[in-house]
Order: sequence, then structure tokens, then C-alpha cells
Amino acid sequence: MGFLESLRRMVEAVPGAMAAAVVGTDGLVVEGYTPHGSVDLQVHGAEMATAMNAVSKAMEALQQGEVEELTVRTGQALAILRPVAAGYFTLLLLHPDGNLGKGRFVLRRATPELSKEF
Amino acid sequence: MGFLESLRRMVEAVPGAMAAAVVGTDGLVVEGYTPHGSVDLQVHGAEMATAMNAVSKAMEALQQGEVEELTVRTGQALAILRPVAAGYFTLLLLHPDGNLGKGRFVLRRATPELSKEF
Repeated sequence: MGFLESLRRMVEAVPGAMAAAVVGTDGLVVEGYTPHGSVDLQVHGAEMATAMNAVSKAMEALQQGEVEELTVRTGQALAILRPVAAGYFTLLLLHPDGNLGKGRFVLRRATPELSKEF
Repeated sequence: MGFLESLRRMVEAVPGAMAAAVVGTDGLVVEGYTPHGSVDLQVHGAEMATAMNAVSKAMEALQQGEVEELTVRTGQALAILRPVAAGYFTLLLLHPDGNLGKGRFVLRRATPELSKEF
């Protein structure tokens, strides 16, 4: 059904979700959805790609395998990242009081569908 | 009660826990506990510090505030990181099938106690 529709469904399914995007590890956003336009997806994509790459390198150096999921909590946001294809990940951004468990579940469930689009 | 005792209690309280450590953001391990000696704490501390710093910088650039918690899942490990004092974080390392929810809970609960040691 295309990236945008999948991303929109994801955001609508998770309480407290602010945005969802498919991002390249080069920091470029392939597609993104943010219901209120409150999130600058380009900037978030670029910064989260840098974070994802650094974490991937660390886990590789530790011979712990490839990153399957990364979550970051701050006072203002909750980010969940999950690889979706070689060189790409999906980002789901929630309010800090958003439902992390539901977010992880919805993102994991959407991944096979999103993968098909590559 | 000291770092080592707190770290030991943490590892023993979480099913699937492999190691726990207090690490400086410069990558040096202040104290660590690994029951079977299977985890090279120095190397893990150094790599996880690099990851933590990169994620912190990204969240700072996004003006999302300071990192309160970072979790990384790979096929071989589950890492939970939580700042404990300025320039230091606690690392809890689990087997990939370890209890993430319990790990996050135990780490959060232990943080005030660990903070007192600084």
C-alpha cells in the first residue's frame, strides 16, 4: 500500500505518536508522516541516522550482531528505530508519555509490509 | 552500599542479565559486575560510551533534551543504558531473550542509590 499509508496507519495506531518515517542511513528521509506538521522530519531523519550508525558500529565492534531495535527516551521525546531494509530504518517518534510498548509492537508488525516496498 | 554490590543485585534481579557496569562517557569503566566473566566489560564500556555520546549529541541537536534511557537490541544482546551522574551512565547487558521490562525497571529503581555514590 505504499510507505505513506503504512506510516500514517502506524502513527494513528499508537497513542502519543508524533511522526513516522522511512530514513536512509545516509540521513535522507524517503517518506515521512507527521499529522500536525510539528516535527521537522528532515532534521530528525538526519540526526537519528547518525545515532543509528554510531550504535550499529558499536554493536559490530562488540560482535553482538546487527541492531534490530533502538529506543531513546528523553524528557521531550521517545524514539523507536528499526531497520527495514539494507541501508534503511523506520523511525517512530512519540511524546515522552506515549505508549512505548504499543509503539514497539506496531513498528515490529509493520516492518515486513514496509520491507516489501524496497 | 557501593557500586559493586548495587550492580551485583541488579544482575541477580533480572532474568537473562549478563553484566552491569558504571561507565564514564569517556569510555572508562568505574565498576562492573559480570557473574560468569563472559563479558569483556572494558570493551563494552568503551563502545557503549561511544554509542551513548552519539545518541546524546543527536538528541541535543534536535533540542529534545537529555537522554534518560537508551536501549539497543541485536540478535545476541540487549543493552540498557541510563545516565547516573554528569558524565556517567549505568549499563545493563542482557541475553537477547532477557526480560527487557524487568531490566528497565530494575535499572531505573537502582539509579538514585547509584547516584548517591558520586
